[in-house]
Amino acid sequence: MNKHICTLAVLSSLSFSALAVDCDPNLLPSWKDGTSKTEIIQFVSQSTDKSQNTFIAEKDRIAVFDNDGTLWSEKPYYFQLAFAFDQVKSMASTHPEWKTQEPFKSVLNNDIPGVFKGGEKALLDIFTATHSGITVDEYQNRVATWLEAAKDPRFSKAYTDLTYKPMREMLNYLQDNGFKTYIVSGGGVDFMRVWAPDVYNIPQEQIIGSALKYQYDYNDGNPTVTKLNEILSIDDKEVKVENIQHVIGKKPVLAVGNSDGDHAMMQWATSQPNSMAMIVHHTDKDREWQYDRKSSVGHLDKAMDEANKRKNWHLIDMKNEWCTVY
Amino acid sequence: MNKHICTLAVLSSLSFSALAVDCDPNLLPSWKDGTSKTEIIQFVSQSTDKSQNTFIAEKDRIAVFDNDGTLWSEKPYYFQLAFAFDQVKSMASTHPEWKTQEPFKSVLNNDIPGVFKGGEKALLDIFTATHSGITVDEYQNRVATWLEAAKDPRFSKAYTDLTYKPMREMLNYLQDNGFKTYIVSGGGVDFMRVWAPDVYNIPQEQIIGSALKYQYDYNDGNPTVTKLNEILSIDDKEVKVENIQHVIGKKPVLAVGNSDGDHAMMQWATSQPNSMAMIVHHTDKDREWQYDRKSSVGHLDKAMDEANKRKNWHLIDMKNEWCTVY
Repeated sequence: MNKHICTLAVLSSLSFSALAVDCDPNLLPSWKDGTSKTEIIQFVSQSTDKSQNTFIAEKDRIAVFDNDGTLWSEKPYYFQLAFAFDQVKSMASTHPEWKTQEPFKSVLNNDIPGVFKGGEKALLDIFTATHSGITVDEYQNRVATWLEAAKDPRFSKAYTDLTYKPMREMLNYLQDNGFKTYIVSGGGVDFMRVWAPDVYNIPQEQIIGSALKYQYDYNDGNPTVTKLNEILSIDDKEVKVENIQHVIGKKPVLAVGNSDGDHAMMQWATSQPNSMAMIVHHTDKDREWQYDRKSSVGHLDKAMDEANKRKNWHLIDMKNEWCTVY
Repeated sequence: MNKHICTLAVLSSLSFSALAVDCDPNLLPSWKDGTSKTEIIQFVSQSTDKSQNTFIAEKDRIAVFDNDGTLWSEKPYYFQLAFAFDQVKSMASTHPEWKTQEPFKSVLNNDIPGVFKGGEKALLDIFTATHSGITVDEYQNRVATWLEAAKDPRFSKAYTDLTYKPMREMLNYLQDNGFKTYIVSGGGVDFMRVWAPDVYNIPQEQIIGSALKYQYDYNDGNPTVTKLNEILSIDDKEVKVENIQHVIGKKPVLAVGNSDGDHAMMQWATSQPNSMAMIVHHTDKDREWQYDRKSSVGHLDKAMDEANKRKNWHLIDMKNEWCTVY
C-alpha cells in the first residue's frame, strides 16, 4: 500500500507540477513549499539526526493523529454518523416503534436538522442502537459492506476517497523515518479499524478511539466478543490523553489535530522539549470546507489561540499550503 | 538488550552444555530438546514459511503472554504485592491510622497471613492506597527506586532477575521471526512498563495490564496524568480477551499463560486455524516452585484439563524441559 501510494503520488504530482511549480514531486508532493512543509521536514530531520541534541530514539518516536477533520473530511457531519443513519434505515423493519420515536423518526424521514435538535443524547441513542448488541465481527462486516456502496453527497465519492492526500503523505513520511503513527480519534475504534489500516498504513493496534464495552463469551467453544450497550470510552478532549497513557504508556512527541477536541493531547505532547503540534485549518471552501471558531463539528477556537502564541505549534492552511486535497 | 541477552545466553549455555548434552547452544539454549521446544520451533516455522498454507502474514503475528508465573515467578505472592507492602511501610509515618486499621496493621507487623485473611478486598485496599493519588511519573519513579534495592526473600535476587531465561529466549525468538509480542497480565500496567521493556524487549505500548483510572490536568501549562483511586480494568480471565479486543483489535495467534486466569485468552486465540496455546506448568520445587490445581496464586485447573485434550495446547514442564530457570 505504502509504495503504491507513493507511486501514485509521484505520478499525479508530476502532471500537477506543470501547473504548480511550488510542489516538489519528490518529497511530500501534495504540499506546497512553505511553512508547514518546512516545519514537518525540519522536525523529522532534527528527530532522526543522531549528531543533534534534538535526536529522539526510535522507540520514542510516537506521533498521534486525530482522524475526523485531520486525516479525512468531517462535514457536513461525521462520516460514521452517515453509517449510523443508514443502519437505522436498514434496521427499521425490525423496529416498528422507530416510526414515531425520536431521534429515529427524524432519521427515517431524512430530517437531519431534526436529528441534531436532539443534541448529544440523540446521537448517542443512534450510535448505541446501531453499534451494540452484535459481535465485533458482525459489526465490522456491516461497516465494510456499507463503505463499498456509500457515497458522500457533496463529492459523490466513497468516504475512504475523502482522506487527505497531503496527510497520507505526511503519515508515510513519518513511518519511513521510524515514527510509530497512531490514530487517536473520537470516532469508533471498531469502525476505523475496518478501513484505516489500508488507507493510512496504520495497523489496528495503533488505532485508539471511542468504544463501547466488550463482552467475551465462551459460547460452547466458538468464542465471541460482543459490543455492549454501554460506553467504555468517549475519546475526546482530556480523555484522549488518558487513553494515550493507558494504551501507549508514553508521551507522544508529535500531535496533530484540527479542533479543540485535540487541544489537550497537543498540550500533553508539547510539554517536553523537541516536540511539535500541528493543526489542520479548514480554510478551503471550494476544494473542501471552510470553518473554525463557529463550527459545532470541528470547533477550533482555544487551540488556534494557543497555536498563534507558541513556537512549536503550527496551523496548516489547507487552501494555501496543499496542492491537492484528496 | 536483545543482542546482549543472546550473547549471554550463548556464553552461559556453552559452559552448561558440557553437562547437559540435550541443550542446544544455538537455538533456544535454555530449552531441552523435547516436546515444548519442538512445538515452539514448528509453530514459528509453519507461521513464517510462505509456501505453506499455515503461513501467517507478519501483521497478524500477534503473540500474547501473561506475566506473573509465565515470564517471571509469582511465589510466595505476586512481586507487585511485595512492592505495595514496602510502600505501606514507607508511607506509614503520614498515615498514623494504619497502626490500628486492617489490612495496613498486618502489613506493618509483617503479618502476611493476616493480610491475606482480608481476602481480595484487603489487597485492593492496599493497592489503591499505594498506587493512586500520584502522577504516573511519580509512581513509576517509586517502582524504579524500589526495584533497585528490593530482593526476593527465598533467592536473595532482584525481582527482575527472577524472569525465566527460557521464556525470554522464546520471546526473542518470536520477535526475530516477525511476531509482535504483547504482555497481557493481571499485574499493573504502570508497574510493568517500568522494567519489562528492558527485560523482555517489549515496548511500553505492547503491555496490557490492570489499571486505575487516569486523570489529565492541564496544571497551568505543566500537564500531568494522575492515577485515581478507582479501577479502570482488572485484567484477568475474560477481561483479558476484552482488553485484547480493545487495545490490539485482532485475535492473537499464540497465547501463553500459566493459570486459569489465562484460560479465556487461550481459548480466544486458538478459536482459529494455525494457532497455539502454551501453559507454563510449575513442576520444579527445587529450582523454582511446584503448584497447580490447589494453589490460590497461579491456580491452574480447568486450563490444564483443556490442554490435556487439545492438540495445539501444550504444557511446558518446567522441571523436565528447562535447562536453566532464571
